[in-house]
Amino acid sequence: MDEISDSRLEKLKERAAKALENAYVPVTGVKFGAAVLTDGGEIYQGSNVQSVISGMGTCAERNAIENAVSHGKYRFKAVLILTSKENPVKPCGACLQMIAEFADVSKHDIEIIMVGQSGEMKRSNIHNMLPDAYTPEEAGLDLEPYR
Amino acid sequence: MDEISDSRLEKLKERAAKALENAYVPVTGVKFGAAVLTDGGEIYQGSNVQSVISGMGTCAERNAIENAVSHGKYRFKAVLILTSKENPVKPCGACLQMIAEFADVSKHDIEIIMVGQSGEMKRSNIHNMLPDAYTPEEAGLDLEPYR
Amino acid sequence: MDEISDSRLEKLKERAAKALENAYVPVTGVKFGAAVLTDGGEIYQGSNVQSVISGMGTCAERNAIENAVSHGKYRFKAVLILTSKENPVKPCGACLQMIAEFADVSKHDIEIIMVGQSGEMKRSNIHNMLPDAYTPEEAGLDLEPYR
Amino acid sequence: MDEISDSRLEKLKERAAKALENAYVPVTGVKFGAAVLTDGGEIYQGSNVQSVISGMGTCAERNAIENAVSHGKYRFKAVLILTSKENPVKPCGACLQMIAEFADVSKHDIEIIMVGQSGEMKRSNIHNMLPDAYTPEEAGLDLEPYR
Repeated sequence: MDEISDSRLEKLKERAAKALENAYVPVTGVKFGAAVLTDGGEIYQGSNVQSVISGMGTCAERNAIENAVSHGKYRFKAVLILTSKENPVKPCGACLQMIAEFADVSKHDIEIIMVGQSGEMKRSNIHNMLPDAYTPEEAGLDLEPYR
Repeated sequence: MDEISDSRLEKLKERAAKALENAYVPVTGVKFGAAVLTDGGEIYQGSNVQSVISGMGTCAERNAIENAVSHGKYRFKAVLILTSKENPVKPCGACLQMIAEFADVSKHDIEIIMVGQSGEMKRSNIHNMLPDAYTPEEAGLDLEPYR
Repeated sequence: MDEISDSRLEKLKERAAKALENAYVPVTGVKFGAAVLTDGGEIYQGSNVQSVISGMGTCAERNAIENAVSHGKYRFKAVLILTSKENPVKPCGACLQMIAEFADVSKHDIEIIMVGQSGEMKRSNIHNMLPDAYTPEEAGLDLEPYR
Repeated sequence: MDEISDSRLEKLKERAAKALENAYVPVTGVKFGAAVLTDGGEIYQGSNVQSVISGMGTCAERNAIENAVSHGKYRFKAVLILTSKENPVKPCGACLQMIAEFADVSKHDIEIIMVGQSGEMKRSNIHNMLPDAYTPEEAGLDLEPYR
């Protein structure tokens, strides 16, 4: 996997910051913003969207990926997640699951970049954060149309 | 609620058609595309995104709304849903729930436009399709920041 | 559909009341309890289960149905939902969707009974509350194994 | 954490096997069964429940936990997951997330036991499978009422 350039990283942070501002959080008030970088270099953003109803709504990371999918992008290099809290926060298990599924589509690891309001940044990848995930390929699905 | 103009309706159909093409459907192969029209006249699109995992993924309508939210739009005039099947299909209950929640934010009804590949179009609204929905306001949440 | 007897109705209320007590609601503190009556006369209960994560957790009604499924029951006569609030509350759209799917399996309507702490009770059915729902049969799935 | 006795483990397997038989899988036909062991020694079972609708339905593990919650149990020693496939399968990210949340409630690690039809068994725990998870406590929620 190629290194993500500094300017690309800045752009990801900017888009995640915009998404964080837009988060719809009437339940807890805690905002998150995410941005995904596609293999082709495009960026899509996502906010967390809360619902009064358990099981509804979405985290920022899943929203960003689903936004990218809506525009025909299925292969991703990186997901950046920005929290409104001081320190960087890990994606939840459900978001890690979705990232792992698209790593399967992408046929390569996906970098996960976590940023806090302090500016602190942690970098990892889906291979380390959800090793041996249950993925579409393991389930026997054909992913070729999306590659 | 103002009538949606013919040209606006055409634009909604075009965007939903693009989203339908982009749908990620490795599980069943059945594609949907949606487009939402904001109170300000912008359009956001959404595809259905399937997962091997029960409880993951999203329908096209929820995806379109969550995409709009990520761009700071919370008030909607209409949601159009296009199916890859011959005849128009109703939004599922989970999508109706999310539309009802944002009708609450919008402080007005939201039109629901259902279109099939035959070109047949049915029009209704959330007030009729999910009457007396359990919404954020009923749950006592403050929606003013999103109006 | 046969009338539900008064003693059966009392039993449903009792089980929903137990489930309500058990609700796991660290996010909002608002508790719900549900109970489903199977075609064979068994009762299964469900609580709402909240999560910090958007898109996770479940409402009481879906939980009760999924509990029944885990015990091999797929056909239901009624779902009773009890709220911790004064007045009866409608099931959310996602719960209505799941009830509609199992009405399809059941091959008959499912009664929906809503009860508040005041003792007030409203009765309706899934046919009226989510008319023309998008169901497994419409999607072409084979439900015979569950009948 | 005390060792789980052989007889307890057998019981967990039996209950997961029953739940697997009961799985509602009209979409893919792939069945899973789970069983959770509470701190008090009770066992609750869960099947996977599929829906035509993306974002609806549940995996077996989440169903088993939500079933236990409906009966007032919030602290767990172990989750066993049985697949209809030859080899053991890992819980998905969404299930790991829910297990991590209840490990937080339980105030101790939760063992995860994966079993295939071959009889092969793998054992791990939530601490290793989803390290540093984003949990209710990190989100500032009060879990005392559930301990």
